[in-house]
Amino acid sequence: MEDVPSLVAQAREGRPRAVARLISLVEGASPQLREVMAALAPLTGNAYVVGLTGSPGVGKSTSTSALVTAYRRQGRRVGVLAVDPSSPFSGGALLGDRVRMSDHASDPGVYIRSMATRGHLGGLAWSAPQAIRVLDAAGCEVILVETVGVGQSEVEIASQADTSVVLLAPGMGDGIQAAKAGILEIGDVYVVNKADRDGADATARELNHMLGLGESRRPGDWRPPIVKTVASRAEGVDEVVEALEKHRAWMEEHGVLTERRRARAAHEVETIAVTTLRRRIGDLRGDRRLGALAERIVAGELDAHRAADELIAGLTGS
Amino acid sequence: MEDVPSLVAQAREGRPRAVARLISLVEGASPQLREVMAALAPLTGNAYVVGLTGSPGVGKSTSTSALVTAYRRQGRRVGVLAVDPSSPFSGGALLGDRVRMSDHASDPGVYIRSMATRGHLGGLAWSAPQAIRVLDAAGCEVILVETVGVGQSEVEIASQADTSVVLLAPGMGDGIQAAKAGILEIGDVYVVNKADRDGADATARELNHMLGLGESRRPGDWRPPIVKTVASRAEGVDEVVEALEKHRAWMEEHGVLTERRRARAAHEVETIAVTTLRRRIGDLRGDRRLGALAERIVAGELDAHRAADELIAGLTGS
Repeated sequence: MEDVPSLVAQAREGRPRAVARLISLVEGASPQLREVMAALAPLTGNAYVVGLTGSPGVGKSTSTSALVTAYRRQGRRVGVLAVDPSSPFSGGALLGDRVRMSDHASDPGVYIRSMATRGHLGGLAWSAPQAIRVLDAAGCEVILVETVGVGQSEVEIASQADTSVVLLAPGMGDGIQAAKAGILEIGDVYVVNKADRDGADATARELNHMLGLGESRRPGDWRPPIVKTVASRAEGVDEVVEALEKHRAWMEEHGVLTERRRARAAHEVETIAVTTLRRRIGDLRGDRRLGALAERIVAGELDAHRAADELIAGLTGS
Repeated sequence: MEDVPSLVAQAREGRPRAVARLISLVEGASPQLREVMAALAPLTGNAYVVGLTGSPGVGKSTSTSALVTAYRRQGRRVGVLAVDPSSPFSGGALLGDRVRMSDHASDPGVYIRSMATRGHLGGLAWSAPQAIRVLDAAGCEVILVETVGVGQSEVEIASQADTSVVLLAPGMGDGIQAAKAGILEIGDVYVVNKADRDGADATARELNHMLGLGESRRPGDWRPPIVKTVASRAEGVDEVVEALEKHRAWMEEHGVLTERRRARAAHEVETIAVTTLRRRIGDLRGDRRLGALAERIVAGELDAHRAADELIAGLTGS
């Protein structure tokens, strides 16, 4: 068993191993998970969580790296959670381990964590928010959550950020692909990366059209900006940071930040509750109660719905 | 609202519209679902449920049709539940509506029902067993459940039958594909269809090897037979029926049939319980209780796990 209070204290001092250990405890649903989460609860709520999503090849990792550099110049502590299986950060990497993000590997103000997209109890919807809480409690002021914009759970995670950045790159049909993946609906800030390539202006125009950004909005509504970048040369990255800060300020002004964080917390509670109930029901396999109900169903004495009622009633409290 | 007792009575008399209506009520989770299931419970448990699964192109629909013919010659009432989206029975068809199975379309002793693989509350794991109960209560003595052997829920349904038939066809790599799809573990009877083609013997040998059928087994163990068929010409189909009857007799002799039906009922109860709890949690979205919990989490006063406990305690009693 780990000494959780000591791990938490070390994580708050900026010790990467302690952060890594805590994330492993929460994502693996260890017996100490609840102890860790209870210890972290009063320490969280300070980080600004930015989701970055986009199809493979748009330059998500390069953009994430450039944003880390920009935030580090401001002296902010940054956490990166990469839930993209194709990301160079992938493979259980923390702080330079198998990480190509060499600019940041030796920077003690940056935490990098990758997360496999499969295999966790309850999946990403369960493990990502808890890893974010660890990074938050460890003192990261900005947390960049990089997800590939393919797959419902990845899009869901991105949409659960304080601010969601959707990345695109010039090229025929890219906008259509983004729309298909459902990521066009979730952007607070849009980035057309690789803007030195042909078609960048066309992509931005197409995006502007698809988003209906030309249409009138109610006063006070957020109008998602479209920023053009060449992340590999850090061009336009300061403008992205500026757009993020504007969105954050707008959210704070309109009470949206608290609203989003409550929605995220509610979603997290739901996920944990469903996973817990599923596990409890799973524990009943081979249990006498479920076996007895099944026997009565086969005998035609009971239908499956009334049996499910009895099963649910038996789950109470425990 | 439907008159459920009248629908049930009509279904027992063999009226196809009543059967169709009842299936729609149970798969769509109508408000009358529970009334229907309660009315059906004492009438079920007589049908012999046979699952047929295999990769696309092995001739599942042709084999199903040939089995229907064989069982009809014995004077048995037959139900077909096709949960294969690529099946010719697909598209909400009942009794000839958009069905190419023209041999049986006008036969009042055959019910054919297709089931979409998506869109139902709780998915196939929820709707298929309930549709089977309707066909069972309607007096079908044999129910053939045709599923494409791709995708976890499809394989799961096939494995929940009294007897599972796995179909293959000659061709390189077919066995490997079957193994990958996880369908090799679930077969009680194996059929190599299209046995007039080159490689049928090789496929049967490969299958025999992969299944370890040459190895010794405990006395009384079931040894899955491999039957070669040309379903389009009805060749070998009587042998399949014979193998099914042998398996049924073996199951009855060894208490396996009751055991399997209890396992199926237990699985059904679990699925209904999980779906019900999920829905109840979903109903809490925007609910004051969940909102209040989320507020306390954002304030750092509570962690998501303790919040989930409170949510669960509030759910399971109602």
